[in-house]
Amino acid sequence: MKAVILAAGLGTRMGTLTEEKPKGLIKIAGREILYRTMKILEKEGIEEFIIVTNPKYKEELKEFLEKNKFKYMLVVNPCPERGNGYSLYLAREHVSEKFVLVMSDHVYEEKFIKEALKGRGAIVDKEGKFINKEEATKVKINENRVVNIGKKLKKYDAVDTGLFILEPQIFKTIEEISKEKESFELVEIIKRAKPKVTEVSGFFWMDIDTPQDIKKARKLLITKAVKNRGEGIISRHINRKISTKISEALVDYVEPMHMTVFSFLVGVLAGIVALFTPPIAGIFYQLNSILDGVDGEIARAAMKKSRFGGYFDSILDRYVDFFVLLGLAIYMKPGIWMWGIISLALFGSFMVSYSTERYKGEYFTDIYKSIPQMKYLLGKRDERVFLTMIFSLVNQLRLLFMLLAVITHVRVFVTIYFVWRRQKT
Amino acid sequence: MKAVILAAGLGTRMGTLTEEKPKGLIKIAGREILYRTMKILEKEGIEEFIIVTNPKYKEELKEFLEKNKFKYMLVVNPCPERGNGYSLYLAREHVSEKFVLVMSDHVYEEKFIKEALKGRGAIVDKEGKFINKEEATKVKINENRVVNIGKKLKKYDAVDTGLFILEPQIFKTIEEISKEKESFELVEIIKRAKPKVTEVSGFFWMDIDTPQDIKKARKLLITKAVKNRGEGIISRHINRKISTKISEALVDYVEPMHMTVFSFLVGVLAGIVALFTPPIAGIFYQLNSILDGVDGEIARAAMKKSRFGGYFDSILDRYVDFFVLLGLAIYMKPGIWMWGIISLALFGSFMVSYSTERYKGEYFTDIYKSIPQMKYLLGKRDERVFLTMIFSLVNQLRLLFMLLAVITHVRVFVTIYFVWRRQKT
Repeated sequence: MKAVILAAGLGTRMGTLTEEKPKGLIKIAGREILYRTMKILEKEGIEEFIIVTNPKYKEELKEFLEKNKFKYMLVVNPCPERGNGYSLYLAREHVSEKFVLVMSDHVYEEKFIKEALKGRGAIVDKEGKFINKEEATKVKINENRVVNIGKKLKKYDAVDTGLFILEPQIFKTIEEISKEKESFELVEIIKRAKPKVTEVSGFFWMDIDTPQDIKKARKLLITKAVKNRGEGIISRHINRKISTKISEALVDYVEPMHMTVFSFLVGVLAGIVALFTPPIAGIFYQLNSILDGVDGEIARAAMKKSRFGGYFDSILDRYVDFFVLLGLAIYMKPGIWMWGIISLALFGSFMVSYSTERYKGEYFTDIYKSIPQMKYLLGKRDERVFLTMIFSLVNQLRLLFMLLAVITHVRVFVTIYFVWRRQKT
Repeated sequence: MKAVILAAGLGTRMGTLTEEKPKGLIKIAGREILYRTMKILEKEGIEEFIIVTNPKYKEELKEFLEKNKFKYMLVVNPCPERGNGYSLYLAREHVSEKFVLVMSDHVYEEKFIKEALKGRGAIVDKEGKFINKEEATKVKINENRVVNIGKKLKKYDAVDTGLFILEPQIFKTIEEISKEKESFELVEIIKRAKPKVTEVSGFFWMDIDTPQDIKKARKLLITKAVKNRGEGIISRHINRKISTKISEALVDYVEPMHMTVFSFLVGVLAGIVALFTPPIAGIFYQLNSILDGVDGEIARAAMKKSRFGGYFDSILDRYVDFFVLLGLAIYMKPGIWMWGIISLALFGSFMVSYSTERYKGEYFTDIYKSIPQMKYLLGKRDERVFLTMIFSLVNQLRLLFMLLAVITHVRVFVTIYFVWRRQKT
């Protein structure tokens, strides 16, 4: 299947931004709108993109498409003022089968596009959770077909998502309209063609019209990028609240790997400080735990996720845990039996990660996915770090290590029990 | 596809064994011959088994088939003395498409059956690496067809593996022969039908005729069950040589999980002994390392592999490493800086496993498979254990911990570097 992308429109309300560049090339959370849509479509099997643009944006778009190695065909609409209906008309020679039609100024989350591609006709959203309905293009539906479409509809059933799955027959309707008038919009085509309707509701998508929209979309993309599975209480209620704010502020400027390394350095600092001042080390350690979420959030929101990133980050986390706990231990100048307990706590902290990760290596699925009860088990990293901070602040390090030694190994035993029980059923 | 299994023959040279039971139900390395063949065929998509047996074995076979939940049809040959050709003749009503024909007294390794199923006609082996050629049924080939077959052939090109992929047309030939004579063997059918030939050479398979064959097959199955990937020098050259002998002796009597627990207990013992007598602890630790291979060998050889087994075994290994190293550390009564080095060594040992396993969880493939250079990196468990034993025997524990601290972390860093470099290409 091919996709036709309409990118000939001239931005009007974006201020200085779109004087210079096509809307599709505006970066939101570190990636161009078009990059997002096209990468997702590519992943879902779209083989070629027909992009209709205007003479002014041609070079810039071409550069973008080459850089990202998309398979594309650039169609220039010499008169963008003749409307986006006319832009679609120009794409007709390049489409001979069912195709996707998508706007260049809409941001979609992956799940939305995945669902939409299963449908046909106009993809509409009955909830429109994330958009400004006043500005939206509304759709009136009857017998599962579009009967009216427009921004000003008083009575409507859903909103247009800017994504369509169309058959080449649509070009007959366009041909008709083009004989009647010089300029025409897509909504006019849809109004006359009355295509079928597929509802895909509740997912994140929005059209980008104003600088406020960019900000809103960035925030939502970061929120959607928060890893939900395998997070402890502290992460859900404290860390993620702060880390998403940091991610929002940094996503446009910082690469995930930079944050991984920065967060590690904060952790190393915590380990060094622990040798002298446990309370401050505790705070740095907790800061490391918060920052530890940022690299992943940025990576997912900016579609910059890499396996090496995930792998490297996990290993660095283990090193930070080791440095901080060892630093605190050395500060305590413990006797031999206390060293035994410290070792148990250190070892237990690793075994929590090991028993979780080893599961994935054996069963090729996330342990939190196949054994949902796991999420209620205490002892995840965010919880251990927070506990370490609290006990460091009140200078109760002996108690801390005893507690860690117990919590972590109990968690490992229960994990083994869960895995064993799952095996049996 | 269906499979026809000929199991009506009466064992003649098996001594007391086959007075009581059909050859297919003889256990080799903990599993019946038939269980092996049928499980592999089932895994390769065979949906139903037509098993031809004699009245005497019927009940026993039925019990076996029910217990293992195979989808089967039991055909009784009331006159087994009329030959295995006649047995195949009796299966004719149940076969209407291409089918697999296989003998119940042949043991095959999985890869052999997998390859054989891609072929057609008589599956022959030109090497016959694992069989006694004098006893084998030989095949003379011309223009890719069987032209002669028999035990006594002087000139031959390959040996018959007892596995055939046949079309139902074969029953026309059988019909002919059955009109000419009362009793007939499969070789007579093949000789007359002259089916195509597919060569599948070099894999392990053998027919079981004598008690010596059982022993030989057991030994070979254990050898084939040795995990090759991710093994260190010590494992390859010392541990596996001993563990396979133990596995051979125990595979018929012991469950893999019993060995896992027993090996763990030896490790725990090593940890306790370490508090008092490091040299003896070192020997127990090395014994644990050897026994650690046995559960896996037995599990694979006896087709009793379970994911929980692999998972549980890995976690117990980490605990044993911890107990032994902590035991040795406590024995040393180290000062605070030595504790730092001990912690580094303990943590490093753990990180070697973690960096390997975490890779599998992220990339869903074995690190030794995707990064072959990994196998040259020192510091795998078998090597660490051996080092620990040697240094315990000569009572150089300080040196041991320093060495472990360096080797393990160097290994982790190089691993990260390899993974990073692979990501880039």
